Amino acid sequence: MSSETLERTEAAGPLYSQVADRLEGLVERGTFRVGERLPSVRNLSREWEVSITTVMQAYRVLENRGVIAARPQSGFYVQPRFNALTPGPAKAAFTAPPCEVSLDSLVLRILQDSQNPRLMPLGAAIPDPALLPARKLHRTLSAIARRQCHRAMGYELTPGSKELRAAIARRSVGHGCALSPDDLVITLGGQEALSLALRAVCKPGDTVAVESPTYYGILQMIESQNLRALEIPTCPRDGISLQALRYAIEHHSPQAVISIPTYNNPLGFLMPEANKKELVELLAAHDIPLIEDDIYGELGFDEDRARTCKAFDRTDSVLLVSSFSKTLAPGYRVGWIAPGKYLQKVIRLKVTSNMANPTLPQLAVAEFLAEGGYDHHLRRLRRTLAERMEILRDAVSRHFPPGTRVTRPNGGFILWVEMPERVDSLALYWKAVEAGISISPGMLFSARPQFHSCIRLNAAFVNEKTEKAVRVLGALAGE
Amino acid sequence: MSSETLERTEAAGPLYSQVADRLEGLVERGTFRVGERLPSVRNLSREWEVSITTVMQAYRVLENRGVIAARPQSGFYVQPRFNALTPGPAKAAFTAPPCEVSLDSLVLRILQDSQNPRLMPLGAAIPDPALLPARKLHRTLSAIARRQCHRAMGYELTPGSKELRAAIARRSVGHGCALSPDDLVITLGGQEALSLALRAVCKPGDTVAVESPTYYGILQMIESQNLRALEIPTCPRDGISLQALRYAIEHHSPQAVISIPTYNNPLGFLMPEANKKELVELLAAHDIPLIEDDIYGELGFDEDRARTCKAFDRTDSVLLVSSFSKTLAPGYRVGWIAPGKYLQKVIRLKVTSNMANPTLPQLAVAEFLAEGGYDHHLRRLRRTLAERMEILRDAVSRHFPPGTRVTRPNGGFILWVEMPERVDSLALYWKAVEAGISISPGMLFSARPQFHSCIRLNAAFVNEKTEKAVRVLGALAGE
Repeated sequence: MSSETLERTEAAGPLYSQVADRLEGLVERGTFRVGERLPSVRNLSREWEVSITTVMQAYRVLENRGVIAARPQSGFYVQPRFNALTPGPAKAAFTAPPCEVSLDSLVLRILQDSQNPRLMPLGAAIPDPALLPARKLHRTLSAIARRQCHRAMGYELTPGSKELRAAIARRSVGHGCALSPDDLVITLGGQEALSLALRAVCKPGDTVAVESPTYYGILQMIESQNLRALEIPTCPRDGISLQALRYAIEHHSPQAVISIPTYNNPLGFLMPEANKKELVELLAAHDIPLIEDDIYGELGFDEDRARTCKAFDRTDSVLLVSSFSKTLAPGYRVGWIAPGKYLQKVIRLKVTSNMANPTLPQLAVAEFLAEGGYDHHLRRLRRTLAERMEILRDAVSRHFPPGTRVTRPNGGFILWVEMPERVDSLALYWKAVEAGISISPGMLFSARPQFHSCIRLNAAFVNEKTEKAVRVLGALAGE
Repeated sequence: MSSETLERTEAAGPLYSQVADRLEGLVERGTFRVGERLPSVRNLSREWEVSITTVMQAYRVLENRGVIAARPQSGFYVQPRFNALTPGPAKAAFTAPPCEVSLDSLVLRILQDSQNPRLMPLGAAIPDPALLPARKLHRTLSAIARRQCHRAMGYELTPGSKELRAAIARRSVGHGCALSPDDLVITLGGQEALSLALRAVCKPGDTVAVESPTYYGILQMIESQNLRALEIPTCPRDGISLQALRYAIEHHSPQAVISIPTYNNPLGFLMPEANKKELVELLAAHDIPLIEDDIYGELGFDEDRARTCKAFDRTDSVLLVSSFSKTLAPGYRVGWIAPGKYLQKVIRLKVTSNMANPTLPQLAVAEFLAEGGYDHHLRRLRRTLAERMEILRDAVSRHFPPGTRVTRPNGGFILWVEMPERVDSLALYWKAVEAGISISPGMLFSARPQFHSCIRLNAAFVNEKTEKAVRVLGALAGE
């Protein structure tokens, strides 16, 4: 009787599955590390006293689970782990003072916190209005309303103001593209640009690979469009793991990838240019569209403007998305998308969803870009944000519990803080609000139960009161 | 051997199906008319020499097809016909000078026509900017930007400006509702309000009952959300046929109904109040939400403000949708929805799609409603539109080919023209554009091939040149 036949009588399941579980346990405990080779089939068969067929079957099971991968003429190697295929954010309500809330309403609440004058707004990723050229932009808008009275009353039909598209196209040379006004569609902020991009390339049931952690708005979109999120491990220094992504493409065939490669939300990294190029080429080879969110692209702490992935796009398959909400005027809701070969589809979706963007904000931003000193404003803004980021990082490193780690962002205004495992960032959120501080708990940045001891902080509002707020936060985290 | 067994050997299909086809032919040719009783089962069995079982089966087939309906203790009656379950608008391109276009691009083209100064804009349903209080509204907006500089830069978070929602709630008493500000969500025009309403109550694959003809934007939304349209015959005087709708509910279980009951687009009717009430009660009894588009509600030619269906809503199942795009400023993109029990869902969808409406246009409309003389403006606007509508109707009746029929709208600025069968309104569109006139061809208003000899005309821009344009149109139609 072969071991094959014997297995079927075992209560604990087939023998090969027990072998696989034992091996996976060894990988999890670090006995075998990522990139290392597993014992040969023959050796393991001898050591564990099971048949060669059983070991082969166990290895195949582990391959299917994504734990190992075969390399021809070489053997089986431990793969980088990434989170398995998961649906959108869990809807389960959780109990916490002062009331039960869903993840969706927590997201809304954190946005509302940012308008509550009694709270220090370290939660939502919004810019400090005091850093924006409010008066100048409003004056521009008012002057246009006087000069172009009838036009300002009428529709500025989708794809949007020609002047604005021309101004955005001119700036695109700075990040390595040479867009034409006809490549662009004006949208209601970056949020609509992302949402249209996703609708243009996916249909319900499709799988979308995203960075992990990622901006919670992306996870909410994935859920509301009935898509599935495939979270790819993402390094706080170099960005999305291309190795894990390659593996995910082969085994889970995502229909799209969303990345925030430049001054990432929430990790702050600038993906190296070589990686951007490799990412674009990898996806092009598999005919998978890349949705690139460049919303922080103009906010690098370095003087050089980082190139976008779109700059390496030879197949028109990158949908580049951005907005003026982080740099100029969130309340004007002016964003844009360069959807590549999905242009006509995006235009149709935009018209069907809401016809067109409001006219005056588009014209005002166009004129500001053309002659308002946008670059001068950006230089000052970047310098201030870099300073405020350093103040915030310094305060966290001094006041948070030992073992806390923070990112080192290359731009933008978002800091990711990883506290010791025992800290529950959701409980911390409620305590912080009571103490007059709003933060974003890490759990929001994944559809799976992880990052529970991380928080995201906004450096844009750093002022003389921030040091004290961080001290209070650190003390609450240490409790 | 019974006829049952015999049938199975027939080449032309089962006998009962042949009987059903023959009967349906008689209904189509008018031998049996809507409301009339079919012969009794026994009589038909005798006359056509088929078994009673066969006739019974044939009648059941016709019932399933929606041709007849059984009335207990009475027999089978011919039902009003409505269009069968159909997917969204056909995507098939058609050939016509000067280029091939899809229906979607034809819709876009007609919108673009309205901004082409060389075309008389009788096509798109947009108001004449000369009739709108442009300077006053822009001045209000500019003053707010000066006074509330920081607020105007920041988000006015969904559900939107409290002042604006309060102003809309105050006005709701006028149409029989007593909405509270908390019942309302501000949207990017009526288009987004409709689109959110549909997303809140349907999921892909669901069936939506609509008026036939209906506003083409609704059909485009249904298509882009992967829903199915069920077109219900609609009377140019009283609105959607409640009898046909009742039948459709029983046989096709739509998940939602969309209606424009007040100054309908494109038919212009005001649905009688009793019908509105009956419609709401019918849908409530079947737990089907009603999406009510009231975008022309303020534009009645009569002084009385018509009540909305929402006024009769006892179950919170009417999603009332409107905007200021027809009365105040299309380019401000300020619309709203009172989604009843779907409020939280609509808020979530709005936040996920585009975060929030722009701030300044909301605040400006709010202030204009509160103290800008909106009612005074509306009185003048309604009077002007009523006059222009009469001029347009009169011109059409004098210059169009004999046999042409036009609607008698009770409000709004849209006229529906039914020309003799031989006129192809799509060909007429292209000829008209060459002659400097834009119109909307009737085919756009259905997902099925119908209304091909109808056109929709916009009365808002009627001026001293309209008479001549209508004469040209009439001559082209008569060719």
